[in-house]
Amino acid sequence: MIKKFLDKNFLLSNSIAEGLYFDYAESMPIIDYHNHLIPKQIAEDHQFENITQPWLYGDHYKWRAMRTLGISESYITGSKSDAEKFEKWAETVPYTLRNPLYHWTHLELQRYFQIDTILDTHSQSSIYEQCNDMLSEKTHSVLGLLKMMRVEVVCTTDDPTDDLMYHKQFNGHPTELNMFPSFRPDKFILIENENFITSVNKLSDVIGSSIDSYTDLINALRNRADFFNSLGCRAADHGLEYISHVHYTGQEIEQIFMSKMRGQSLSLEQINQFKTAILVDLGEMYHDLGWVQQFHLGALRNNNVRALREMGPDTGWDSIGDWSQATSLSHFLARLDNQNKLTKTVLYNLNPADNALMATMVGNFNDGSSKGKIQYGSSWWFLDQKDGMEKQINALSNMGMLSCFIGMLTDSRSFLSFPRHEYFRRILCNIFGQEIERGELPHDIPWVGKIIQDICYYNVKEYLNI
Amino acid sequence: MIKKFLDKNFLLSNSIAEGLYFDYAESMPIIDYHNHLIPKQIAEDHQFENITQPWLYGDHYKWRAMRTLGISESYITGSKSDAEKFEKWAETVPYTLRNPLYHWTHLELQRYFQIDTILDTHSQSSIYEQCNDMLSEKTHSVLGLLKMMRVEVVCTTDDPTDDLMYHKQFNGHPTELNMFPSFRPDKFILIENENFITSVNKLSDVIGSSIDSYTDLINALRNRADFFNSLGCRAADHGLEYISHVHYTGQEIEQIFMSKMRGQSLSLEQINQFKTAILVDLGEMYHDLGWVQQFHLGALRNNNVRALREMGPDTGWDSIGDWSQATSLSHFLARLDNQNKLTKTVLYNLNPADNALMATMVGNFNDGSSKGKIQYGSSWWFLDQKDGMEKQINALSNMGMLSCFIGMLTDSRSFLSFPRHEYFRRILCNIFGQEIERGELPHDIPWVGKIIQDICYYNVKEYLNI
Amino acid sequence: MIKKFLDKNFLLSNSIAEGLYFDYAESMPIIDYHNHLIPKQIAEDHQFENITQPWLYGDHYKWRAMRTLGISESYITGSKSDAEKFEKWAETVPYTLRNPLYHWTHLELQRYFQIDTILDTHSQSSIYEQCNDMLSEKTHSVLGLLKMMRVEVVCTTDDPTDDLMYHKQFNGHPTELNMFPSFRPDKFILIENENFITSVNKLSDVIGSSIDSYTDLINALRNRADFFNSLGCRAADHGLEYISHVHYTGQEIEQIFMSKMRGQSLSLEQINQFKTAILVDLGEMYHDLGWVQQFHLGALRNNNVRALREMGPDTGWDSIGDWSQATSLSHFLARLDNQNKLTKTVLYNLNPADNALMATMVGNFNDGSSKGKIQYGSSWWFLDQKDGMEKQINALSNMGMLSCFIGMLTDSRSFLSFPRHEYFRRILCNIFGQEIERGELPHDIPWVGKIIQDICYYNVKEYLNI
Repeated sequence: MIKKFLDKNFLLSNSIAEGLYFDYAESMPIIDYHNHLIPKQIAEDHQFENITQPWLYGDHYKWRAMRTLGISESYITGSKSDAEKFEKWAETVPYTLRNPLYHWTHLELQRYFQIDTILDTHSQSSIYEQCNDMLSEKTHSVLGLLKMMRVEVVCTTDDPTDDLMYHKQFNGHPTELNMFPSFRPDKFILIENENFITSVNKLSDVIGSSIDSYTDLINALRNRADFFNSLGCRAADHGLEYISHVHYTGQEIEQIFMSKMRGQSLSLEQINQFKTAILVDLGEMYHDLGWVQQFHLGALRNNNVRALREMGPDTGWDSIGDWSQATSLSHFLARLDNQNKLTKTVLYNLNPADNALMATMVGNFNDGSSKGKIQYGSSWWFLDQKDGMEKQINALSNMGMLSCFIGMLTDSRSFLSFPRHEYFRRILCNIFGQEIERGELPHDIPWVGKIIQDICYYNVKEYLNI
Repeated sequence: MIKKFLDKNFLLSNSIAEGLYFDYAESMPIIDYHNHLIPKQIAEDHQFENITQPWLYGDHYKWRAMRTLGISESYITGSKSDAEKFEKWAETVPYTLRNPLYHWTHLELQRYFQIDTILDTHSQSSIYEQCNDMLSEKTHSVLGLLKMMRVEVVCTTDDPTDDLMYHKQFNGHPTELNMFPSFRPDKFILIENENFITSVNKLSDVIGSSIDSYTDLINALRNRADFFNSLGCRAADHGLEYISHVHYTGQEIEQIFMSKMRGQSLSLEQINQFKTAILVDLGEMYHDLGWVQQFHLGALRNNNVRALREMGPDTGWDSIGDWSQATSLSHFLARLDNQNKLTKTVLYNLNPADNALMATMVGNFNDGSSKGKIQYGSSWWFLDQKDGMEKQINALSNMGMLSCFIGMLTDSRSFLSFPRHEYFRRILCNIFGQEIERGELPHDIPWVGKIIQDICYYNVKEYLNI
Repeated sequence: MIKKFLDKNFLLSNSIAEGLYFDYAESMPIIDYHNHLIPKQIAEDHQFENITQPWLYGDHYKWRAMRTLGISESYITGSKSDAEKFEKWAETVPYTLRNPLYHWTHLELQRYFQIDTILDTHSQSSIYEQCNDMLSEKTHSVLGLLKMMRVEVVCTTDDPTDDLMYHKQFNGHPTELNMFPSFRPDKFILIENENFITSVNKLSDVIGSSIDSYTDLINALRNRADFFNSLGCRAADHGLEYISHVHYTGQEIEQIFMSKMRGQSLSLEQINQFKTAILVDLGEMYHDLGWVQQFHLGALRNNNVRALREMGPDTGWDSIGDWSQATSLSHFLARLDNQNKLTKTVLYNLNPADNALMATMVGNFNDGSSKGKIQYGSSWWFLDQKDGMEKQINALSNMGMLSCFIGMLTDSRSFLSFPRHEYFRRILCNIFGQEIERGELPHDIPWVGKIIQDICYYNVKEYLNI
């Protein structure tokens, strides 16, 4: 029996999996605790003019696919019209077979637009029209799209210097959706970057007082963190190649900071000392605030120098690095723990070769103080697909406690990405369904259903204290 | 058809797998060639007072699970009663779904106690009673438990300074079980550790002569190895992050040893030189003795500084490291081989990212002198679960010779862990059964059955010359 | 229903997979774009005297298996007769269950010799005779064997100093087979090797002019590359541990070259500088020539010092290394790209832990200029088996564009290895067939069939412009 593509039971391979999904997982609300949505569009309940805007303007996954197929940049990030760009994307879709884009694309067409035609050169014109028509309706405004998916909470990712005006503005809205900011201080950690000084100066402007020392910097960040906290912020996030952890003294860090601000060049050792210090100081701060700290580790960014020059960062030229992760990460977490300053922590790895390392690392600092205090985060970026999700779930299951997992997030820039929660839930239910059928788990549907609901919703709700 | 959890055909997905398991694998005796059982308990045929003692006193797998769920340390390694600790473990079990603990727990309840109820808060009280009652009977003494599982040989893991009095004492026993010591000289390799000097002094006391040089140290270890050998020792074991291999001279090593013994600090280079030297010298010694040398590589130990201070090592705060393994390991093995001093060797890796590396490394030194001379060891610690075993078996199959594999060991501290051999055998039979059904192997049951019996029993018997 | 071993539908698990294979994949010709066949044997249409010659003379996969089983070297690379060697191989085959050798052996017996008996000690004598008889016939000459497999193109791997006389000679042949050379300049990159000076001197002799500087060396290599190009060369290949990429100046490189030629020893830094420089210069040259550059990364070679001394390189003593690959590889590719000198590039990794790294790295330099410009190469050497192929296909699918893949190559020294293309095609069709059946892909056979034909044939044809 050949199953219809993307039918009701998509990814559910037996009736147990179906039962688990439809009876337990499907109806759970969504807490999207880490994403890159644009707060302004939420606060203003933005209405897109056409499907190209939410689908293709910021989606570097799609861009990479188009470039690989040999499509000119003018149709990707260039000057071609939205309709032309959509046409080229439609031409690309049939070539993305087996890539998650193929599933996501058609899942999004079904869920948001009730379209179950395959997108290709033949169907593109009518699909474009139909999507655009629907996007012009109130049901398909930004808040409409989120409501359609039962999104209860979104945690955006924000610069410490951000005034969060849209978070404030939205706080007054009479809606069931909550939008919280997250604190992302990478610019102040990556002291090797050219824009470090500019960032510090901007921060100084925002807090209205000069930053003349490392201590000033930390105080300024605390100032902003308090502000973020007042608007419901519950988490910080960091995108780093790896966690640095080397010896330093406070005096050395002050000197390193001053050297940098004076435009002097730093040694690799100094850079690592600075990163160690600020991560420790930030970690203590998060603990004081009762926040969750997240670390996205292992991305090798901006590989293509030409493209970086022409298009800037985050335009689809990043890949997976292979730095050593374990030892320094362990020392960093141990240091905070030893000071009773280790807050709830989520570790995300980009290189799947590190799955087992990460899944076991979290167990070193789960100290019985709360359920799943240290989390092995959901599969991320290149790993955010069926195979990657299954591997993350399996590593966590085999080497940790799947039942304590806080589950899925979109990490997305797109308001149309929320079916990825459904995608994750189907995969999760299917894993359980298959093992029950094979007699590797007891046929105890209420219990397994409870675990699934915990993973899909209740664990993260408790974890973030929402 | 939903299979009953943990039924007769557990993990056997078709009738070929069932046939292979029941007709060939099940009845094979067990040679548990590496574990951490307590010799005293074997020699004295210890009788446990309750199930908490053999199950929860030393099992850091269970401890980590409980900590992750948020259970207080007082119920784990703390002062709560055995009954209370069992109750908390029972509360944890249903949350361990998909972790090997879930399978192991219920497999052990079935095999040793004929209990096929799921352990949870409801069943815990009656299960506790029933297990304790049975444990008070002679059938469930330590020797009873081992006999129940058809254990023929156990190789314990012993410190070179150990007097092996329980091995001696047990040698006289009229039993079918053999207990051999294994030589584990880690304390004398890890020269960077604080307790190195103490260990050398203790060794000096044991051999009754002073150790004033590196040469004295090696002679002392040889002295002890001869003693171990006289009690049937057939193998040495080493737990190392990675194999060091750097250049050294004998004179340098003598100086490094003297510096250490005088309390001077060593450079990283000196530490690595010392480790290189002693591993080479030990390797030559093992070759002379006709022993097997085992290397467990890749554990990142004692991550949690606070817990180490409070509880000591081996209490559940270890995880997987990511050191480079290949080059120095290759040089080390090549050096011994080039001197015609490379004895039979088993390599175990903890990071599954190194599976292929290890599976192919062994092939570099299989020189035709004996069957499977260099072994890619069974999946270990965090990898000792269905997924991990399958991956080890598949890596070995695809890049080496599964038929020459010496198979499973428990590596356990618990007398209730022996169903893991059954677990391994079922997985092994299932792999063959599935491939035969799919036509990827010939339907030649006698031959496949012979290979399975070799892996379960005969290969290791021949390998250890038992 | 138990499927017969290696039957018509071998590796095809449902009727969709069967349809895809038989209707689309099977009949595609073979472009074997990278192998180690001996040009002389092609040009002279060599006729083997017995099956031992093409099967066992150069196949270190088989040698490793025999050594692991404990077979003496005299039967492997030693002085025993071809018949005796075959007998020992036949004895080994049943022990290779689950190793790709088991599949390859019987697939080759079926496809080339119509033998579907299992090779073992009982059948070996009659199989030896039958194979030898057939090998003496014209149908089973080297060209016959290639024709039987529908091989259209072979790209051999040749030293820059090679006179390519057999390529020239064969160019005149009235045959449907094309044989092109590939340029493999490793000897001129690995400046740390003892034979570097000899190689440079040989190159100097071949071009008939002295090589007194690095610039001379590059000019000499360009001279040879032009010659290769005139004989249809379309690709270069490099076997390296990893790509070096450190800072250098032209003056430094000239000095390093001179130092080496004067017999002075080089620092590790100098070695890396030289490698960086020559890889960049070669990369630019390949771009000018419109060639494809291939990089085989990650092999740890010549592990067994004794065996290297006794037998030389490439005799079965190599394994998988674990160097860092990402950062320097990225810098190297970015540098060429930034100069508009990045030619089509294929990256092959030997350590499967690097699969995701490589699959995403290629996406950084796919710039829309041509379909699949940068390729994540087919699974290689130890990974060239069902599991390894599936993992490479899955990594590429999930993180890149499978539809743009240039597919399989043998990389083989043997004229009997071409059923590996069939093996790959069956696996590929099966992957698609299974996903269609599960509803994870649409049941659009013509489209999936087209993609499969692209991967098996058309993509590489277009890629190499053949």
